[in-house]
Amino acid sequence: MKPIKVGLLGLGTVGSGTFTVLRRNQEEITRRAGRGIEISMVAVRQVEKARAIVGDACPVVGDSMLVVDNPDIDIVVELIGGTELPRQLVLRAIANGKHVVTANKALLAIHGNEIFKAAQSKGVMVAFEAAVAGGIPIIKSLREGLTANRIEWVAGIINGTTNFILSEMRDKGLDFATVLKQAQDLGYAESDPTFDIEGVDAAHKATIISAIAFGIPMQFDKAHVEGISQLQAIDIQYAEQLGYRIKLLGITKRTTKGIELRVHPTLIPGTRLIANVEGAMNAILVQGDAVGASMYYGKGAGSEPTASAVIADLVDITRLAAADPGHRVPHLAFQPNSISQEIILPMAEITTSYYLRLRVADQAGVLADVTRIMADLSISIDAMLQKEPAENESQTDIIMLTHQTQEKNVLKAIEKIEQLATVFGQVTKIRLEELS
Amino acid sequence: MKPIKVGLLGLGTVGSGTFTVLRRNQEEITRRAGRGIEISMVAVRQVEKARAIVGDACPVVGDSMLVVDNPDIDIVVELIGGTELPRQLVLRAIANGKHVVTANKALLAIHGNEIFKAAQSKGVMVAFEAAVAGGIPIIKSLREGLTANRIEWVAGIINGTTNFILSEMRDKGLDFATVLKQAQDLGYAESDPTFDIEGVDAAHKATIISAIAFGIPMQFDKAHVEGISQLQAIDIQYAEQLGYRIKLLGITKRTTKGIELRVHPTLIPGTRLIANVEGAMNAILVQGDAVGASMYYGKGAGSEPTASAVIADLVDITRLAAADPGHRVPHLAFQPNSISQEIILPMAEITTSYYLRLRVADQAGVLADVTRIMADLSISIDAMLQKEPAENESQTDIIMLTHQTQEKNVLKAIEKIEQLATVFGQVTKIRLEELS
Repeated sequence: MKPIKVGLLGLGTVGSGTFTVLRRNQEEITRRAGRGIEISMVAVRQVEKARAIVGDACPVVGDSMLVVDNPDIDIVVELIGGTELPRQLVLRAIANGKHVVTANKALLAIHGNEIFKAAQSKGVMVAFEAAVAGGIPIIKSLREGLTANRIEWVAGIINGTTNFILSEMRDKGLDFATVLKQAQDLGYAESDPTFDIEGVDAAHKATIISAIAFGIPMQFDKAHVEGISQLQAIDIQYAEQLGYRIKLLGITKRTTKGIELRVHPTLIPGTRLIANVEGAMNAILVQGDAVGASMYYGKGAGSEPTASAVIADLVDITRLAAADPGHRVPHLAFQPNSISQEIILPMAEITTSYYLRLRVADQAGVLADVTRIMADLSISIDAMLQKEPAENESQTDIIMLTHQTQEKNVLKAIEKIEQLATVFGQVTKIRLEELS
Repeated sequence: MKPIKVGLLGLGTVGSGTFTVLRRNQEEITRRAGRGIEISMVAVRQVEKARAIVGDACPVVGDSMLVVDNPDIDIVVELIGGTELPRQLVLRAIANGKHVVTANKALLAIHGNEIFKAAQSKGVMVAFEAAVAGGIPIIKSLREGLTANRIEWVAGIINGTTNFILSEMRDKGLDFATVLKQAQDLGYAESDPTFDIEGVDAAHKATIISAIAFGIPMQFDKAHVEGISQLQAIDIQYAEQLGYRIKLLGITKRTTKGIELRVHPTLIPGTRLIANVEGAMNAILVQGDAVGASMYYGKGAGSEPTASAVIADLVDITRLAAADPGHRVPHLAFQPNSISQEIILPMAEITTSYYLRLRVADQAGVLADVTRIMADLSISIDAMLQKEPAENESQTDIIMLTHQTQEKNVLKAIEKIEQLATVFGQVTKIRLEELS
């Protein structure tokens, strides 16, 4: 059988990894796919630079449209980044009847609904394993491996940069800014790290996970997005003393009132396996009603790990290209006519536990005032840590862990606590999940 | 579209879980599969008992042949256990043009080659996600999620009973026999626990993993099988002091000389995530050349976790039933005409590190004699622990960790060491893997 022909848009980190791994493991991949997978055209901005990698294996062009409109190409692999240009290219590839593979989480989280609708009506596949957690086959596991389950929640470490920073802050007791600088010097963080550290990248991925876990449309605009740039080293230490680690989690949960979709720093029990996922590694914990807890761990970024997912998609498409479109795995795990319109809950409506840190006067009655406010709002306290004031200091820290409660109650409590004359500055609030 | 019709053979732990989960999550599963999945006949030995579970949902019969020969049934789910009867039933179902789902690891490890060949020639699917690690989608991850990779090795905790026993032995400092008794009382171990504790169950699963990781036929008869019944509590303690945990691992590894396929107690560094997988949980660590290390964790047994995998297979088959057989995922991950005949190495030829414990006379020169024997066989010592003899005792323990070496060298060294007059009894040997 003739090889299936692939057009590659972009030859950066992931693109060159895809090129390299496809070439290196050609024989092994063909033995699995039953048919060769051949990159037959590459489009890049810097044509000369790309030729150095590609050699004379295939034509390298500067205009992506030459790939997208090439009638010989069966699958377009989009590895450009950004959203508007990829959107146009992907929609045009689909209109031309080509299958698409993309690693672009922002594209899917923002324009996924439009893209999948177009693909559906043309009967082509859009595969995106590489868009979430790099080389970990989490899309496949959720969409195919756990189909028996009513998924209850998914919680994941899905951004390696922030997990690296949090691991370093904890290990070495350093503050955020210092570690970020080191991470940039080491190449673990971008020179403009905003998307990573402010949780945007994780929120793109959580949006995709939420859609396929629950069979809902992509709704990135309704995700709660909170990064780690405001996180203080002292809270990592206090959390540790209470038996918890702080991780940036992407969380999506089904409740009777709607779907929770949120990214924020989270205390999790130190004994959980996922609490021990360190450095730039990713891990996703999935709770299903039949399977219970299962976890998927690996490299969430990097050239070859991400290429591993891109190529797995290419093999899937190669295996399925001849199948009746109605019988392929649906893009969002559920059949297009079965997508649910369950609401995404506003953040005030979510329910979780909380870590609160207060700077207070070291005098009698403070704790009574604080706990009275909590009790009036029906917030139960699960654990408390009161530090001895340092010598010659009249202020100290109180740390409280609450039971599960609604976010809006906690916000009200914080507002009232901050008005007490014996409480100084703002209350630090970090959400806490037992993940059990 | 009419529901796809399933015949269930066996209604024990996994069968009743499958029945229950399919009924409970019917709507959710149909939304995913695009078509209802209906159990339309159940065959069991005890018909009356089964009727109490099944009710009047479908006929319950005592003769499995009535299911296997029923022209209305599209998929036969084999959940009987044993090997000879299931083999006959599965081959007959295939001959009748039915797809098959099985959770039977022994059946596949021993008769898989025959079964897949029959399925291939009839153009039907045989799915077996539930046969390895229960609810964890490890077959799918290896066979579809990691297709880009040249798999280097797989190492897994794939038997929950033995992991529970090892966790308890370590936690509570108890010996094997005591913990086994407790595990039996708690229902974690069978009344005849041989298959679990002697490593046979893990070896069935490792055989299946090896076949799909490397594209080789099932070769259970060439697997090295060693359980935990001889493991002593003292070795768990010494391992701990050296920074290691002991787990029963199923290991399969590609080397330049052939494939390693072995199940045995193994020291692994305590800092590895997989070393912290406790109780009856399962976890499989996969090393691929592109993705690096990835790990899959969850419940490896039990009614609903295993049913989760059975039903995922049913959904896969439902999605793919109409596809051209030549384009489905191949049974052993690689196309049937691409199965490789690489040899499975005899155990003497494998290469790994070793933990050795010697009971020796507490006198000068013993260590020199021992290390001379090791050096003559080119075995390097990586770490050593020599215990102070207890008061009034003239004997003590020496523990050595070796560098990587061939098993046959270690066997020779042990033979010579045991001949020394200053060494008492047998040398305890446990293999060690860094898993990096």
